[in-house]
Amino acid sequence: MHFVIIGGDAAGMSAASRARRNAPDMKITVLEMTQDISYSACSMPYVLADEEGDMDALIMRTPAVFREKHGIDLRLGHKVEDIDPEARRVSGRDSEGKNFEVFFDKLLIATGSAASMPLIPGHDLPHVFVLKSLDDGRRVKAFIEEKRVKKAAIIGAGYIGLEMCEALTERGITVQLIRNAPEILPWLAPELSLVVEKALGEKGILINHGCTTERIEAHGSRLDICCTEACFDAEMVLMAIGVRPSGFLAKNAGLELGAAGAIAVNRSLQTSHPDIYAAGDCADAYHVVTGEKVWIPMALTANRAGWAVADHITGKPVRMEGVAGTGVFKIFDVEVARTGLTVQDARKAGFDPVEVVVKSYSRAKTVAGSRPVWVQMVGDRQSGRLLGVSMVGKDNEARRINAAAVALHARMRVADFSTADLAYAPPFSPVWDPLLVAANQLLKKL
Amino acid sequence: MHFVIIGGDAAGMSAASRARRNAPDMKITVLEMTQDISYSACSMPYVLADEEGDMDALIMRTPAVFREKHGIDLRLGHKVEDIDPEARRVSGRDSEGKNFEVFFDKLLIATGSAASMPLIPGHDLPHVFVLKSLDDGRRVKAFIEEKRVKKAAIIGAGYIGLEMCEALTERGITVQLIRNAPEILPWLAPELSLVVEKALGEKGILINHGCTTERIEAHGSRLDICCTEACFDAEMVLMAIGVRPSGFLAKNAGLELGAAGAIAVNRSLQTSHPDIYAAGDCADAYHVVTGEKVWIPMALTANRAGWAVADHITGKPVRMEGVAGTGVFKIFDVEVARTGLTVQDARKAGFDPVEVVVKSYSRAKTVAGSRPVWVQMVGDRQSGRLLGVSMVGKDNEARRINAAAVALHARMRVADFSTADLAYAPPFSPVWDPLLVAANQLLKKL
Repeated sequence: MHFVIIGGDAAGMSAASRARRNAPDMKITVLEMTQDISYSACSMPYVLADEEGDMDALIMRTPAVFREKHGIDLRLGHKVEDIDPEARRVSGRDSEGKNFEVFFDKLLIATGSAASMPLIPGHDLPHVFVLKSLDDGRRVKAFIEEKRVKKAAIIGAGYIGLEMCEALTERGITVQLIRNAPEILPWLAPELSLVVEKALGEKGILINHGCTTERIEAHGSRLDICCTEACFDAEMVLMAIGVRPSGFLAKNAGLELGAAGAIAVNRSLQTSHPDIYAAGDCADAYHVVTGEKVWIPMALTANRAGWAVADHITGKPVRMEGVAGTGVFKIFDVEVARTGLTVQDARKAGFDPVEVVVKSYSRAKTVAGSRPVWVQMVGDRQSGRLLGVSMVGKDNEARRINAAAVALHARMRVADFSTADLAYAPPFSPVWDPLLVAANQLLKKL
Repeated sequence: MHFVIIGGDAAGMSAASRARRNAPDMKITVLEMTQDISYSACSMPYVLADEEGDMDALIMRTPAVFREKHGIDLRLGHKVEDIDPEARRVSGRDSEGKNFEVFFDKLLIATGSAASMPLIPGHDLPHVFVLKSLDDGRRVKAFIEEKRVKKAAIIGAGYIGLEMCEALTERGITVQLIRNAPEILPWLAPELSLVVEKALGEKGILINHGCTTERIEAHGSRLDICCTEACFDAEMVLMAIGVRPSGFLAKNAGLELGAAGAIAVNRSLQTSHPDIYAAGDCADAYHVVTGEKVWIPMALTANRAGWAVADHITGKPVRMEGVAGTGVFKIFDVEVARTGLTVQDARKAGFDPVEVVVKSYSRAKTVAGSRPVWVQMVGDRQSGRLLGVSMVGKDNEARRINAAAVALHARMRVADFSTADLAYAPPFSPVWDPLLVAANQLLKKL
C-alpha cells in the first residue's frame, strides 16, 4: 500500500511516523511544499521574545530522522496543486519548477491553515508580517534584529496577537495593539477580559479598540497604519487577525467542505472520499458538547488526528470523540484558559445557557502567594449539563482547566462536577477549588 | 427543630452555617471541646515555616461571627462524653468542670480525627509533639522559638511529616526523618519516590529508613530517640505517624462503625441512627472507583459533607457520590499528587490492575523552565477503566491531577481519557499533556 501525505507538519508527520510503527513495510510518501517539517509553531512567540532564541530549535525531528530512521520518502519543496480522487493521483510542482505526480492508495490531506491577510492597500509591504510558518518566524526575527525595530503594531488580539505583545515587549519594542472589536477577547466576561487588558496596559501596550485598519502606507522605514479615525506609526506590522483552513486542494478535488470551510471528515477522519483522509488544521471535527461539526485548529487535535489516520488505514478501529475547544495562553503574568462553549456558542447550539462569573483564589488565603482567579462557567438549564468554562489567573493555574475539559468529555452535569474530589493543599488551592466554587454558584442558578 | 453539632471544625461549622442559610429560624447548637473553631489545620506547617507566622491567622471565622452574624449557639470548651440516641441527648462537661446536657432533634457527630501516638516510653515527654489541633501548632511554635531548637526528629513520613521537614528546615532546624518502612511514600513507584527522597537529601534532611522507634529518653534539654539499631539525638520530636478517626462517642452510643473504625454513614451521611449524622474525618465515605467504603480524611470532604448534612436535615435531596482519594502536597520544590487507586489498592478491590510509569515534561521542551514530571497510571485490564494516577513534578503542575480525578468520578475508561482535549500551550504543557502520555502508554498494555 502506498500512503501519501500532503503536508509535513503536526498531523502529517504524526500520521507518517505512526503508520511506519503500525506497518513496517508500508510505502509512505510525504509531500511538503516548504523546506520545514515537524516544528513547534506555537513556540515561535517564545523564541522571538528571546534575543538568543533560535527558530531552528523548534524543529522537533529533522528530515534525516524521518528518511533514514523511519524510511519515509519525505519530499520537501513539493507543492501539490491537484488531487485526482478517481485516478488516485496527486500532482504539482517542486521548488525547482519541475512537475511531479504521485499515485496513492490512501491519501492524507494535512495542509493546515493559513494566516488571514486582509487585502488592504499596503498589506504586501515588506514591513508587514504574519506569524504562521517557521519561515514567517525567521522573517520576523531577522527584520526585528536587522532593522532594530523600536515600535511595532499588532493588528488583531487573538492568541498569537497577544502572545506577540509579550514577545515584542520583551525585546524592548513598543507595541501598539490595533483591534477592530471594542474589547479584548470578546468571549470572556468583562471581569475577565479587564484583567487581561490591565496587564497589557501595565506593560505599556497601547491598545486601540474599535479601529478597523484601512490601509498601511510606507514612508521609508516607517509605516502609517491608518484606521477610520486615526493613524498609528510603527516600523513593522504583525497581522494577527486569525487563520483559515487550507481546504482549496480538497475543494478543487470535489471533496466536501464542512465547518468554517474546513474539509469535512467523519469520525474516522475520512473525507467524502473514503480513501482520502484529512487531519489537522485543514479538517473539521466534532465538538464533544454539541456533537456538531466545528473548526477549532489546535496542535493536540492535529497530532491526535494524524495518529488516528495511521491507525485507520492500518486496520485499527478509530472513532474520534471530538474536541472540547480547550485552549490556554499566557500574556505576561496573566493566564487565560477555556474549554467548551461560551454562552453565545451555547445559545446558538440550542442550549438554554446560564452563566456565573466568580472571583476566587489560587491558594489558601493563609499561605503566601495566593492570587485572584476568575472563573466563568456555563451550564444548561434544561439538562443541567456543564457546557463550558473560561478562567483568568496569575498563579500557574491554567492547568486547572483540564478538569473541566474532562468533565465535558464525560458529559457531566454541573451537579456531578460539583461533587468532584479535587486536590487541596494550601499551596495549590483553597479547600474549594475555584472550579468548584463556580460550580456551586452555578448550581444555584440552574 | 434543634440541630446539635459535636465538633466545631471543617465539617461541623460548614454544617452549622449552611443549616442557618437553609433555615433562618432553626435552633443550632455547636459543642466544641477546645477553644478553637473553623481553622485551616492544613496550613499549620506553612505558619511554622515562617518566623513571622501567626497561628491565629488560620482561624477562618471567629466565634463572634458564628454567634452574632449567624445566630449559632456556639459553646466552646464543651466536651461531649456521651450520646444517648434514645433520649436524643448529649451530655458532657465544660472547661470549668460543669456538667451539661443538650437535647437534639438532629445530631451531627463531627469529632474529626486524632493524631496517632504510640505508647512507647517517653511519648509523653514535653519535647514530644503531634501536629493536629491549632493548640498543637501553638505548642510546637512556642517550643521551637523558646528553646531555639536546632535539631529535630520527625517520626513518620506522611503528608504532615514531610511538610514539616520543609517547615523546620526553613527555620534553620536540622531535621532527621525517622521512618519504620524501608522507603518514603510506599504507594509511589520507586522512580517517583526517589525524586522526593532526593529533594529531601539535597535540603539536608537526614533520612533513617527502617527504624522503628522503641523509646525516647530525655537528658535535660536533649533527647535520645532510640530505635532497634541506633539512637538519634534531637531537641524535639514530632510524631507524625498518621491519624485515626475519633469514633469512640459514636461507638459507645451503639452506632455502627465502618471503614478503618470510622463512623459508618450512608450516602446521606446518616449513621445507623437516622437522626444522627456523621461528617468529616470521623466518618467513612464511598470510594468512587470501587464503590466500597473507605476512610480518607480530607478537608474538602469534610466541608462538603458538612454542607450535605445541613441540606439533608432541611429537606434537600443529598446523595454523596464519594471520594476519589485525591491528595496533593509539596515538599521543597517537589510536588506530589495522587487520585484513585494504587496497584495494591486495585488488586485488593478485585480489579486486574496494569500500571505504567512515564517520565514526561512540564512544558514544551522549546520553552524555558520545562522540568521533568513523572506519572504513574493504573488501569483495569478487564474493563479498561482508569483506576488511579500519581504524579511527581517540580513545575507547579500538581493541579493537573484534577483532570484524572474528574475522569475517575466519570468512571472513564483509559481509552476515553486518552482522547480528552487537554490544554496545550508551550509554557504550560507539551502538546501531549503528561497525563495523556501516560494514558497512551497504558492503553498499549491494557
